[in-house]
Amino acid sequence: MDDQDYMRRAVELAWLSLGETSPNPNVGCVIAAPGGTIVGEGRTAPAGGPHAEVSALAQAGALARGGTAYVTLEPCDHTGRTGPCTLALIGAGVARVVVGVRDPNPVAAGGAETLRSAGVAVDVGVVLPELARDAMAGWLTAVSRGTPYVIWKFAATLDGRSAAADGTSKWITSPEARADVHRLRAGVDAIIAGNGTVLADDPQLTVRSADGAPAARQPLRVVVGGTRSTPPGSKVFDDSAPTWAVSGGGGRVDLPAMLKELYERGVRTALLEGGPTLAGAFLEAGLVDRVVGYLAPKLLGAGPAALGAAGLSTISEALTLDVVDLARIGPDIRLTAAVKGV
Amino acid sequence: MDDQDYMRRAVELAWLSLGETSPNPNVGCVIAAPGGTIVGEGRTAPAGGPHAEVSALAQAGALARGGTAYVTLEPCDHTGRTGPCTLALIGAGVARVVVGVRDPNPVAAGGAETLRSAGVAVDVGVVLPELARDAMAGWLTAVSRGTPYVIWKFAATLDGRSAAADGTSKWITSPEARADVHRLRAGVDAIIAGNGTVLADDPQLTVRSADGAPAARQPLRVVVGGTRSTPPGSKVFDDSAPTWAVSGGGGRVDLPAMLKELYERGVRTALLEGGPTLAGAFLEAGLVDRVVGYLAPKLLGAGPAALGAAGLSTISEALTLDVVDLARIGPDIRLTAAVKGV
Ligand SMILES: NC(=O)c1ccc[n+]([C@@H]2O[C@H](COP(=O)([O-])OP(=O)(O)OC[C@H]3O[C@@H](n4cnc5c(N)ncnc54)[C@H](OP(=O)(O)O)[C@@H]3O)[C@@H](O)[C@H]2O)c1
Ligand SMILES: NC(=O)c1ccc[n+]([C@@H]2O[C@H](COP(=O)([O-])OP(=O)(O)OC[C@H]3O[C@@H](n4cnc5c(N)ncnc54)[C@H](OP(=O)(O)O)[C@@H]3O)[C@@H](O)[C@H]2O)c1
Repeated sequence: MDDQDYMRRAVELAWLSLGETSPNPNVGCVIAAPGGTIVGEGRTAPAGGPHAEVSALAQAGALARGGTAYVTLEPCDHTGRTGPCTLALIGAGVARVVVGVRDPNPVAAGGAETLRSAGVAVDVGVVLPELARDAMAGWLTAVSRGTPYVIWKFAATLDGRSAAADGTSKWITSPEARADVHRLRAGVDAIIAGNGTVLADDPQLTVRSADGAPAARQPLRVVVGGTRSTPPGSKVFDDSAPTWAVSGGGGRVDLPAMLKELYERGVRTALLEGGPTLAGAFLEAGLVDRVVGYLAPKLLGAGPAALGAAGLSTISEALTLDVVDLARIGPDIRLTAAVKGV
Repeated sequence: MDDQDYMRRAVELAWLSLGETSPNPNVGCVIAAPGGTIVGEGRTAPAGGPHAEVSALAQAGALARGGTAYVTLEPCDHTGRTGPCTLALIGAGVARVVVGVRDPNPVAAGGAETLRSAGVAVDVGVVLPELARDAMAGWLTAVSRGTPYVIWKFAATLDGRSAAADGTSKWITSPEARADVHRLRAGVDAIIAGNGTVLADDPQLTVRSADGAPAARQPLRVVVGGTRSTPPGSKVFDDSAPTWAVSGGGGRVDLPAMLKELYERGVRTALLEGGPTLAGAFLEAGLVDRVVGYLAPKLLGAGPAALGAAGLSTISEALTLDVVDLARIGPDIRLTAAVKGV
């Protein structure tokens, strides 16, 4: 095993914590003893619990002495709900720390310098930093900007319809694609939907398994209210998960202000589940970071479009995305793309 | 090399002739000498020229004696513009013939029986028949039905728009995708477009290389006329390729009758290039066999839809396709799908 192999494992651990750690980052850590054996593995526990480094060191015990720690994010240098990870690494006698990505959070940063002044060798951003960045992309973007990372998810036919002409849309996509959406939900801190969607579909917006059982952790549900009143009996207001009903005060909700407040409530990543009107407003305001489209290989030739007005009227203004992944999910297609310039 | 390897090569040769042979099928043939060496290869020449078996036998000469012929389609047993291939194979002393797919054309069929009565061993549909069927799918479908195999091609944004709100659409897709469309055109006998597309875009509808040079062979251009007159100066009427202007007699063109006539004119495969209205009419009438969609990773949120009314108004009526291929073409995505039940 070489540096890259250890870092790959640390990145795997980071992915496993995705969606569970906000407002903390999802970090993975691996400790290799001087001989190269992995003697400790850790990932961020839900907020308030130990950081990845601390868990990994606890597992390693005395075997960490003289070894190397591989950690996806720069170890924190401050005392928050837990003590600084730098001190824990120094105290355990770790000789070298390989860091994926530097911490963009000024309060927590400085870890690399503290370690170096204690005589620990530190490599930052040298070993597969792009993989570490990928696993923590939502958190990194959110923290460096102060607003949540927003993923817009939509489902449509191949010709871009989100429902048929008579309004029916159950189900455009397959059970496999719907299960995949639940995995997507499980990785975020909040799920956002507009009043139009709540009125039309009465969705529950929770994370459930294929048999309908709710997950232990549920993201915050956010209903973007409007001029029409949302019935208090709507499923989104049931007690299966917390819900924030954002009032537009009789008009449109101020979306940037709403996102700022979500960040203050600890939300780092949010899944925007539509509908077309709200998605258009988010895109027009430049508030979407990533798009996940589920395309069913079906044709309708009529019916509402998957995306409503986003202030783009000529072809040169079209919002151009970078495709980062293309996959077949059951009979459907899932396209994941990054909004350029974000 | 085993039977499958030889048949794979014959299928490769069949693909190379796609688009050049109508009304004849695109057939590939490989002759292996008794020791296993390939001593002859052939593929259908443009109509009037030699069939694949005859070319391969000419190359093999005396080395074919006692050998095996691998051919994607059952050798013809009748004298058309060339003599029967069965006699050529028997005359050359071939000991065994491995056939991909039986000939659906009653006039040409019976080849396997003729070969067997002359003492030649014949295997039909045993060695990779699905690959042979794939390479000749257009021709096989057309001949067994008596109407051309129709491929509908469209280009759209991820949200299903074929142009922006102001009508601009140059270019939705990338140069790579447009080059791919020219490859698609090179494989068909006719290119069909509606009056709306001709009036709006004035397309030339020819096969050209990236530098604009026209290909030697050009498919027939078919303009589906309508109530509005098509200007005689339209590019589709220039002398770079033959054109058939189908008149609707002041109303809608009878599409099944038009396809029947195209078949009688020797067209086995046709590419329907839109627009949305004509594509909707083709789909509604069940006249499309395959869909090739080029999706640009762009969002518009407004503008004309890629597909117009096709008589489908509720979700359960949605036309469901089978995805047969998904590829990235430059920054874009190409999805190829078969219409179910065709
Ligand atoms: N295929 C999919 O992926 C998908 C996903 C979700 C929904 N849908 C479909 O979409 C349809 C509903 O879509 P929709 O467009 O009517 O509703 P929507 O986008 O869910 O909600 C739009 C509504 O949100 C409120 N709103 C408040 N502030 C806003 C702001 N700043 N910008 C935009 N909207 C704001 C307004 O409510 P008021 O009108 O009360 O003022 C507005 O009409 C349903 O038929 C549903 O099935 C499809
Ligand atoms: N993105 C793409 O892949 C793509 C491809 C092609 C075109 N386009 C765009 O599509 C737009 C034009 O689309 P369109 O829908 O107006 O035109 P269209 O589908 O190309 O042509 C429709 C016209 O064809 C005539 N027609 C005759 N018989 C017909 C029948 N049985 N069924 C249907 N139509 C029949 C009618 O002409 P009359 O009206 O004269 O009666 C009808 O209006 C252009 O803006 C073009 O840029 C996009």
